[in-house]
Amino acid sequence: MVKGNTHFNHLKREYVFPIIEQKLTDVKSSYPDAEVLNLGIGDVTLPLAPSVSQAIQEAALNMSKPGQMYGYGPSQGYGFLREAICSNKYPSFSPEEIFISDGINTDIVNILDLFHSSCSVAIPNPSYPAYLDSNILLGRKRKIVWMPCNEKTGFVPELPKGKTDLIYLCSPHNPTGVAMTRKQLEAFVAYAKEHDALLLYDNAYEAFVTSPDVPRSIYEIPGAQDVAIEFCSFSKSAGFTGLRCSYTVIPKTVTALFGKSRLSLYKLWLKRQSMKFNGVAYPIQKGAEATFTPQGKAEIDSQISYYLKQAKTLKDGLKTLGYTCFGGEDAPYIWWKTPTTDLSSWDFFDILLKKCHLISVPGSGFGTEGAGFIRLSAFTSPEVVEKALKQIKNLNLS
Amino acid sequence: MVKGNTHFNHLKREYVFPIIEQKLTDVKSSYPDAEVLNLGIGDVTLPLAPSVSQAIQEAALNMSKPGQMYGYGPSQGYGFLREAICSNKYPSFSPEEIFISDGINTDIVNILDLFHSSCSVAIPNPSYPAYLDSNILLGRKRKIVWMPCNEKTGFVPELPKGKTDLIYLCSPHNPTGVAMTRKQLEAFVAYAKEHDALLLYDNAYEAFVTSPDVPRSIYEIPGAQDVAIEFCSFSKSAGFTGLRCSYTVIPKTVTALFGKSRLSLYKLWLKRQSMKFNGVAYPIQKGAEATFTPQGKAEIDSQISYYLKQAKTLKDGLKTLGYTCFGGEDAPYIWWKTPTTDLSSWDFFDILLKKCHLISVPGSGFGTEGAGFIRLSAFTSPEVVEKALKQIKNLNLS
Repeated sequence: MVKGNTHFNHLKREYVFPIIEQKLTDVKSSYPDAEVLNLGIGDVTLPLAPSVSQAIQEAALNMSKPGQMYGYGPSQGYGFLREAICSNKYPSFSPEEIFISDGINTDIVNILDLFHSSCSVAIPNPSYPAYLDSNILLGRKRKIVWMPCNEKTGFVPELPKGKTDLIYLCSPHNPTGVAMTRKQLEAFVAYAKEHDALLLYDNAYEAFVTSPDVPRSIYEIPGAQDVAIEFCSFSKSAGFTGLRCSYTVIPKTVTALFGKSRLSLYKLWLKRQSMKFNGVAYPIQKGAEATFTPQGKAEIDSQISYYLKQAKTLKDGLKTLGYTCFGGEDAPYIWWKTPTTDLSSWDFFDILLKKCHLISVPGSGFGTEGAGFIRLSAFTSPEVVEKALKQIKNLNLS
Repeated sequence: MVKGNTHFNHLKREYVFPIIEQKLTDVKSSYPDAEVLNLGIGDVTLPLAPSVSQAIQEAALNMSKPGQMYGYGPSQGYGFLREAICSNKYPSFSPEEIFISDGINTDIVNILDLFHSSCSVAIPNPSYPAYLDSNILLGRKRKIVWMPCNEKTGFVPELPKGKTDLIYLCSPHNPTGVAMTRKQLEAFVAYAKEHDALLLYDNAYEAFVTSPDVPRSIYEIPGAQDVAIEFCSFSKSAGFTGLRCSYTVIPKTVTALFGKSRLSLYKLWLKRQSMKFNGVAYPIQKGAEATFTPQGKAEIDSQISYYLKQAKTLKDGLKTLGYTCFGGEDAPYIWWKTPTTDLSSWDFFDILLKKCHLISVPGSGFGTEGAGFIRLSAFTSPEVVEKALKQIKNLNLS
């Protein structure tokens, strides 16, 4: 008899996006003429950079010509892209330590294939839902250690109290929009060294870092190359959410204990990827390569500046109106505290949707410590930000 | 302390392709002027169909224009592609039962997320390596039931003797190149119904089927919609190996037991994919959609005919020379028996490489029952087939 994976039964999370969709439909039917201001989902809103588009078109055209590249690519990713990433972002590493994939989400859950079922896992609360859910599905429900990430901790995760084996970090953090400073990251690297733990560093938002004391890579911290795997993506940095291309850095010096031997995880990941994955489409990898050309760099830098400008206007505007909010300086997200303690995330979401026709994301959807907050996304236009602030200004909370 | 997944230690398989690469390098240095005839890896050799290339180019161009599609797509795949697949291939199903992915390999290993660790697994011997390896990595080393697939069984898998929970089938079969008939598939569906088992049906090569009594989908067998998940791909059918696009069909009627409830696997797969996967690149899905246009269909049909012609010439040629070989009628692979019983797969591989400068794949790389055979791929040109037959004709085995 085929028995199912009963760990599915423990996925109790409230999936906020379908609920938001339903509430949006309701509002649209009540106010058919209202313009809905979407500051909800963290998805790019600018068109694809011309250099990227052109590189994809050229690759697709070439694939239709005899004698060009059109068969299986390496499951680790093409050398041209790994070399471009290496020389531009990780000059002290080798392209062999870089693995191309179709999204951080994919790799940050698949990486769990490498670890023993007994490993405990520290997860920031609130955080990106897949960290928790993928571990629950593997039967680690009782192995989770929460790292509060709230007003008291400055919205960055607190070090785990006891020993933990795997530690998820995301900095700049989603959903709080706050990035960890060099000192804070040093403490995590020291913890990992002390406890023989491993940092799984989700670096999706590094392109948005503006603060001088915030590292753009965990490997800026000495010693991190022994205890950290870094996950990066073209999704938010270069508008690739619809194109699916990311990369994972596993230094050869990162190891784990397999029975009695310490083995390099880089080799096992290569084995895992060769067995379970056939690589990313050639035209998409050519598109990703184009982000490292001078023209490509200029185009994507201007996109990041555009989104950061919206974050600043939004945050400054909310503060001027007397609201309390965090983040938005090194990340495209604003973490907005509900104006009164009796207002839950969903209460405030509902008010903003009904009265301002503004979509946000309730903080409680990212974990219990997100309660009492909502997340606003800066992936939008100056016009939408202006209208949103105007609506919020006119908001009567009583 | 971070402990690794010790099931990696049980991956004892000989990885043939790196060995082939090394042997090839050696031959090239000994015979620098020889033309190497590659009938090894099963990878397309024709350029991308013009309709597909054009659709990708258009999509990439559109993504650079304001107001077009450029954010996250649905993790299940765009409606336009699921609808095209449904109406062209599965008219009795709903597009909701079709899931777009980046390769059969990806889905056929990820599908294991749905099942209990206690499930036993039947695997054809020989077969595509990922079936076995992914189960070993999950700790199912002692749960494997082999289905011999040899000369005695007509190179199609034998029904498992006792009860088994999950059954991998691949028809037309890789590596033997032999497809299962309607009657043979009916026996597997009946087995699955009787034992409450589930068929994981790898249908990668359906486009190559020419025999009238060979179904092109497991769902041509009555009752299969209750006991089978089908995995299909554009890789071999439309030359997408470098583009990565596949689809998995999970009828709503396929269920498994989760604790005390029987649940529809389609819903859990949707949950799994929404959590762990962010979909396939938009331009690639547009390229896949183009294979269903009249022009696209004509182009890819002509590619399939081209490869099948090479298979026929190769097989007929080998038979005329007095060799014993199988497959090649409903698949792009020829399963060639070594000419004398004392010649192993690797022995014969070495002879063909050294004396004919011909690359094959040793059958033993696909499982113990593949010993004494080699696989030839028909993904090549008439010129290469002609040269290969000429070299084989002059081959002196003594």
